[in-house]
Amino acid sequence: MPEILVLNGPNLNLLGEREPEIYGRTTLADIETMCADTAAEAGLTVRCIQSSHEGGLIDAVHDARHSTVGAIINAGAYTHTSLALHDALKSYDHPIIEVHLSNPHAREAVRHHSYLSPVAAAVIAGAGAKGYVHAVEILIDYLTNAKARL
Amino acid sequence: MPEILVLNGPNLNLLGEREPEIYGRTTLADIETMCADTAAEAGLTVRCIQSSHEGGLIDAVHDARHSTVGAIINAGAYTHTSLALHDALKSYDHPIIEVHLSNPHAREAVRHHSYLSPVAAAVIAGAGAKGYVHAVEILIDYLTNAKARL
Amino acid sequence: MPEILVLNGPNLNLLGEREPEIYGRTTLADIETMCADTAAEAGLTVRCIQSSHEGGLIDAVHDARHSTVGAIINAGAYTHTSLALHDALKSYDHPIIEVHLSNPHAREAVRHHSYLSPVAAAVIAGAGAKGYVHAVEILIDYLTNAKARL
Amino acid sequence: MPEILVLNGPNLNLLGEREPEIYGRTTLADIETMCADTAAEAGLTVRCIQSSHEGGLIDAVHDARHSTVGAIINAGAYTHTSLALHDALKSYDHPIIEVHLSNPHAREAVRHHSYLSPVAAAVIAGAGAKGYVHAVEILIDYLTNAKARL
Amino acid sequence: MPEILVLNGPNLNLLGEREPEIYGRTTLADIETMCADTAAEAGLTVRCIQSSHEGGLIDAVHDARHSTVGAIINAGAYTHTSLALHDALKSYDHPIIEVHLSNPHAREAVRHHSYLSPVAAAVIAGAGAKGYVHAVEILIDYLTNAKARL
Amino acid sequence: MPEILVLNGPNLNLLGEREPEIYGRTTLADIETMCADTAAEAGLTVRCIQSSHEGGLIDAVHDARHSTVGAIINAGAYTHTSLALHDALKSYDHPIIEVHLSNPHAREAVRHHSYLSPVAAAVIAGAGAKGYVHAVEILIDYLTNAKARL
Amino acid sequence: MPEILVLNGPNLNLLGEREPEIYGRTTLADIETMCADTAAEAGLTVRCIQSSHEGGLIDAVHDARHSTVGAIINAGAYTHTSLALHDALKSYDHPIIEVHLSNPHAREAVRHHSYLSPVAAAVIAGAGAKGYVHAVEILIDYLTNAKARL
Amino acid sequence: MPEILVLNGPNLNLLGEREPEIYGRTTLADIETMCADTAAEAGLTVRCIQSSHEGGLIDAVHDARHSTVGAIINAGAYTHTSLALHDALKSYDHPIIEVHLSNPHAREAVRHHSYLSPVAAAVIAGAGAKGYVHAVEILIDYLTNAKARL
Amino acid sequence: MPEILVLNGPNLNLLGEREPEIYGRTTLADIETMCADTAAEAGLTVRCIQSSHEGGLIDAVHDARHSTVGAIINAGAYTHTSLALHDALKSYDHPIIEVHLSNPHAREAVRHHSYLSPVAAAVIAGAGAKGYVHAVEILIDYLTNAKARL
Amino acid sequence: MPEILVLNGPNLNLLGEREPEIYGRTTLADIETMCADTAAEAGLTVRCIQSSHEGGLIDAVHDARHSTVGAIINAGAYTHTSLALHDALKSYDHPIIEVHLSNPHAREAVRHHSYLSPVAAAVIAGAGAKGYVHAVEILIDYLTNAKARL
Amino acid sequence: MPEILVLNGPNLNLLGEREPEIYGRTTLADIETMCADTAAEAGLTVRCIQSSHEGGLIDAVHDARHSTVGAIINAGAYTHTSLALHDALKSYDHPIIEVHLSNPHAREAVRHHSYLSPVAAAVIAGAGAKGYVHAVEILIDYLTNAKARL
Amino acid sequence: MPEILVLNGPNLNLLGEREPEIYGRTTLADIETMCADTAAEAGLTVRCIQSSHEGGLIDAVHDARHSTVGAIINAGAYTHTSLALHDALKSYDHPIIEVHLSNPHAREAVRHHSYLSPVAAAVIAGAGAKGYVHAVEILIDYLTNAKARL
Repeated sequence: MPEILVLNGPNLNLLGEREPEIYGRTTLADIETMCADTAAEAGLTVRCIQSSHEGGLIDAVHDARHSTVGAIINAGAYTHTSLALHDALKSYDHPIIEVHLSNPHAREAVRHHSYLSPVAAAVIAGAGAKGYVHAVEILIDYLTNAKARL
Repeated sequence: MPEILVLNGPNLNLLGEREPEIYGRTTLADIETMCADTAAEAGLTVRCIQSSHEGGLIDAVHDARHSTVGAIINAGAYTHTSLALHDALKSYDHPIIEVHLSNPHAREAVRHHSYLSPVAAAVIAGAGAKGYVHAVEILIDYLTNAKARL
Repeated sequence: MPEILVLNGPNLNLLGEREPEIYGRTTLADIETMCADTAAEAGLTVRCIQSSHEGGLIDAVHDARHSTVGAIINAGAYTHTSLALHDALKSYDHPIIEVHLSNPHAREAVRHHSYLSPVAAAVIAGAGAKGYVHAVEILIDYLTNAKARL
Repeated sequence: MPEILVLNGPNLNLLGEREPEIYGRTTLADIETMCADTAAEAGLTVRCIQSSHEGGLIDAVHDARHSTVGAIINAGAYTHTSLALHDALKSYDHPIIEVHLSNPHAREAVRHHSYLSPVAAAVIAGAGAKGYVHAVEILIDYLTNAKARL
Repeated sequence: MPEILVLNGPNLNLLGEREPEIYGRTTLADIETMCADTAAEAGLTVRCIQSSHEGGLIDAVHDARHSTVGAIINAGAYTHTSLALHDALKSYDHPIIEVHLSNPHAREAVRHHSYLSPVAAAVIAGAGAKGYVHAVEILIDYLTNAKARL
Repeated sequence: MPEILVLNGPNLNLLGEREPEIYGRTTLADIETMCADTAAEAGLTVRCIQSSHEGGLIDAVHDARHSTVGAIINAGAYTHTSLALHDALKSYDHPIIEVHLSNPHAREAVRHHSYLSPVAAAVIAGAGAKGYVHAVEILIDYLTNAKARL
Repeated sequence: MPEILVLNGPNLNLLGEREPEIYGRTTLADIETMCADTAAEAGLTVRCIQSSHEGGLIDAVHDARHSTVGAIINAGAYTHTSLALHDALKSYDHPIIEVHLSNPHAREAVRHHSYLSPVAAAVIAGAGAKGYVHAVEILIDYLTNAKARL
Repeated sequence: MPEILVLNGPNLNLLGEREPEIYGRTTLADIETMCADTAAEAGLTVRCIQSSHEGGLIDAVHDARHSTVGAIINAGAYTHTSLALHDALKSYDHPIIEVHLSNPHAREAVRHHSYLSPVAAAVIAGAGAKGYVHAVEILIDYLTNAKARL
Repeated sequence: MPEILVLNGPNLNLLGEREPEIYGRTTLADIETMCADTAAEAGLTVRCIQSSHEGGLIDAVHDARHSTVGAIINAGAYTHTSLALHDALKSYDHPIIEVHLSNPHAREAVRHHSYLSPVAAAVIAGAGAKGYVHAVEILIDYLTNAKARL
Repeated sequence: MPEILVLNGPNLNLLGEREPEIYGRTTLADIETMCADTAAEAGLTVRCIQSSHEGGLIDAVHDARHSTVGAIINAGAYTHTSLALHDALKSYDHPIIEVHLSNPHAREAVRHHSYLSPVAAAVIAGAGAKGYVHAVEILIDYLTNAKARL
Repeated sequence: MPEILVLNGPNLNLLGEREPEIYGRTTLADIETMCADTAAEAGLTVRCIQSSHEGGLIDAVHDARHSTVGAIINAGAYTHTSLALHDALKSYDHPIIEVHLSNPHAREAVRHHSYLSPVAAAVIAGAGAKGYVHAVEILIDYLTNAKARL
Repeated sequence: MPEILVLNGPNLNLLGEREPEIYGRTTLADIETMCADTAAEAGLTVRCIQSSHEGGLIDAVHDARHSTVGAIINAGAYTHTSLALHDALKSYDHPIIEVHLSNPHAREAVRHHSYLSPVAAAVIAGAGAKGYVHAVEILIDYLTNAKARL
């Protein structure tokens, strides 16, 4: 079965563990399960990787180049600082969907620019954990319609 | 039945009519129908308005203040220039989902800042016409969970 | 009797209607009555116009060029974005008093620059609804003393 | 007979009416007649529209998409602020000639950038009312030589 | 009787003395008398201080902290350069009305930013010497209505 | 017969010689002939100078101060970098028409500012070689109507 | 015994080893011993970690979230570039003291902004190796007085 | 006995007097006593000066040039605006320790740059009143070790 | 005998006293004597004032308005930060010569802008103490030729 | 035999593997062999390291401090973002040659600034894989001539 | 035999003549000989031109358009200021190698941007006089492999 | 007799010829004579050169390197744009005095930065033609006192 990459960046491993009365009890594991379930409906498996290392994310993208057919990426703060991750994603020949739990464009100016957006097919932000499900659906749509990546 | 506002800004009336071999044949009417269908599944109706006038969009937001329960907005180029629309949306007490057909953050710098994002609950960009369907689903999720707007 | 223009821009039509416990119950109609009463003491009438359309404000200025003797303007968010309104006001040969309910210079940076100030004789901000009364008094003073507009 | 669009933006309706000893007595109607006369020599008619509404200019461009073969545009202050008009003109598949009565690049910095120039075939500024006649001639040259728009 | 502070900054001591045919013959003493007269109608006295020293203005604000109930301030050029005066005013727990004889926002860019506005309840500019009278009236209104300072 | 200066800057000597299938076969000599022909109709001769030296252009302007009655200038890249040429043109007491083959405002940001525009009566850009003919006509119009240079 | 985190970033492992005649012979191990000794006086132990990996520092902060009661951090150059470390520290619910051996604000502009300062309780710079001892004392003071972190 | 300068700038005279439930009851006099006590342990006396005048601080630095052996300075808002104080401190040939009660780098951008840091040996911020004690200890360390000022 | 103002700003009182092997042994008193001697040759006396207070310089300018016929000013660091001194000098109706011992334009960027230059007739920098003598000579030349101040 | 460090940063491990018809079939291993061959001619060996981790590159520099005599570095995107790598290289006491396959100064603005250049002896860009050979030759020249590093 | 252009800009004529103990005794003539020798090995001759005139460099490029097969250019300070030279090089249809003796990216900010880089195939900086030899070798490689210029 | 260079840049050849009622009748020849006379008193001759070519000024500086002992330079507009002239002057080992007829710091922002000031010993501006005489006197003082150039 074709595989998709679900890549999460720095600090996302803490999801669900901290201040659950505010952020809810959804953990990163829950999110990965939600992605897997949605992907399974379209006959896809997921490869889930989280790293707080910029190089770890780059390595994951390299490793997935031949073995996955698309990617869901929430690069956390590296979204706004990593030109190297941008370069890695440029060499990834499949659709990429950028996800953010909250809306970075409603936060500080440093979070208004994304190094990922120029290489992403679509972006979804502010829809919380469910944003990942939407992202998988959008990715499936891209794969199904064999539409060229933007 | 509760109603949601589907608001489209300048130039979106031309969708589907121009260069269909490139942008597809989906018209704004098609998109509005897709929104209505998705909304209907959750027992909601849609009020669809398009205007190329900044003031027209503001008036539409004002008119919908008491009679709608949420909004889907693609303000086109006004996203990046209209502080007045920002102010109008700040006085709209329901969840707002910002939609873009393509990803503005992959385009010129003038399109990197959004006056809507600070008042939007979620943003979806680059998913094409289907982005509106995702937007309606996200809005329904906000309404169902009675979650406070960000 | 000579007439003065009382021009209000986007979103000011909502005054008094929303969150009255915070912003008070003074509506735009109340403000216009206050302006009329103050003007009447000096033998002047008022022409009150509100529009959320940039072009609507410009048209109102054009229409008032020969038939009014001065103007009170609160252009809302267009204060900070409308070079076209600035140009329209430059062709208006009577004193202009710029009004703001709150003080824009205590808000976000985008509200620190005013396209109206260079063509306004005076500015009053942060005095709430009563600021309009002060504005009318200042305008009367300008007219009475036949003082050249700044 | 093929038609060309002659589109004028905010405040240009005041031409000729104000300070004629300085700006001359040429009105917008006179300019439109001059355009019509020049166009007629090449077997073209003109559709003349003036609006102080940003949306009004956009609507005029949309309406003219199929029924005109080229456009002369003086967008006044919207030249420098309207990304939406830029987007509208990008979808207009005929040559566009940008006109300014005076030279904006000799004025304040805010008038040095034009949202129209990237989609205009040619620009003429500072030649006064006669600049429109030159603009029509340039447009005719573009149409005659079937030269691709820049 | 409660007292209000009328604080004037650098160069305002020259008012009325220089080029009276242009700026009028109103001296700072006249303005202080106008303020006193207006305040007296509301049962208030005035404490008038002028200093061309940044530290002198700060000291005056400190001295007035417990003994006055509000302040009228025209800080002259220190409006645009004194972060220290801003800090002093932040520790002053009464309404502050910022006054300018002419409109700084119609002058050079360096005068567009005010360190006082973020801590002022209201601002009045361009109304000349009478602007002080309006300022006292606005201050009285703030005190009468026990309205919280912005 | 009165003479006009036709001044061309760096790289314009290559016109017509390079990639004629793209830029056409019109050489600088052809353009100078077109200018001469148009000028002759109004009883004027042309003095045509091309130099890739900033100082060469300045010298040409100085030499032409007493012996010409107006100038057509395409300063090429010096348009955007030469403050010295700006100063030279300020001391030239006749109308100046600035010409560009393509529209610099549709190119890189460095070409958006013109040191010539503040001293030019009119600007024409994007009309190709024929732009020079329009420029001569505009210059003749300035001379005929003895209109003061902007 | 409660533990505190002593976290050192890139290049700090070289301390004492290089140019001892200039920088002294104090190694990072010496500094960690000094921290341990000072902490021991207050009944605290230290967990000392050094990493030249941005992700390594983030991981260390995550690991210490539940098992330490405060942190001393010298993030070296990541102080000025790591938004991700900023985010990690925001989720660390104990006082943080930022240390620098020399004073970054006396160096190049890129070192004037700190991503750590907004989440640090205190900052000490330029006091050399002894600055760590002061930092531990300040941290103890924060813990002892149960004072809320800034 | 050698003397050290303890210099405090604008508004610091208000310490302890205002909102004691928030800022504590430590007055500037208390801080000066704490400094004197710490200095006394090393056989040093203190000269304590507070001024809200930029020139007052400069004069104090000049007066202390020959009679003190080091300085503790909290210049308040002048830290960020006084190039003149910077120049005065450059001519002071003894170690300078910069102190801030809170951390300016966690506040508005205008407080991110310090004119004092380039001439200070060390900086301590955010440690409250106790920061002065640490500053005196660091100064003593500099004096004891006859270490060259940075 | 007519008097000229010789005004020196912050830190200039230290001249000659510090590092004489580098800066020479010329004190401010010596400079003032040199100015007096040069002025005396033209039948002028000098009024010499030094202050490290911005307000002190402003007061000195005000006091000299009617009693002096020109001014030599070295405002030290206030040259680059004092808009208030700029305003004071604008109201001084006699020629002003700006002096700097060294050349500020060869130093840091903050010293490249002068608030005095727009109101100064002439500027001399980098000529050391003798620059004051040149300044007095230039001032005398301005007075002798009754030339309007720039 | 003395050793030189050949250090390659993020994404350079993909060389030769992707789009060989465009980028050629030269792999990183080929480049490392070319470096080794060139070095061998001068009696040097190479230590080749590639890492997509910023910290990995820093660690490699630290490890090579005593055991290598010079370095060839292509830091990929970290060239433009890594202040920490800059700091590491500053502590490396041997000549450093910076290499880029293509010319970053012909790409986006973010790639115009290099954190490596200030500590590099020489830079070579745009010469493709052979650029490494030139870099080794330049390094050998530096070592042979015992020329101080820039 | 095919010829290559070796073009040197302003001040490079002084090489070797000034401070030889620092910069060495290599003159521009020596460098030109080194270039000729290296070129000769590949059967190429060199045409060496030096000019301190911007226009002189442009003319040299124009003259070499048909008669040379590639160029080595060190444009000195014009590298950073000459848009006109950029335009000239754009019309030169052969590989261009940009050379700098030292590394401009390690110098002041004004030298970080190169107008030549966007049109250069390769850049070599900081390798001193030998950098020209490398540049010729790189150019030969480009010519030999008939590789398209970047 | 030792010689000094008197170098004048673009447009200064027009001095005295144009609008003599405004700028006076002093020509560049007059100024050169004034310089020669002043120099003669100190036993110096002058070499006077004027060029409107940037390269011409650079060549003049090169030619004067061994044969002159100091320079007076008014580079006109090249003062603000010529990095190449800056580089040439850096290699000129004698004192340089920068002169401007009017005060560039009182003009447009582009004239506030001088590429000459960092290499000039002194600057004199706004003293008109007599400023050259002062400049020669300052230069003589530098030469007489064998003071090192700044």
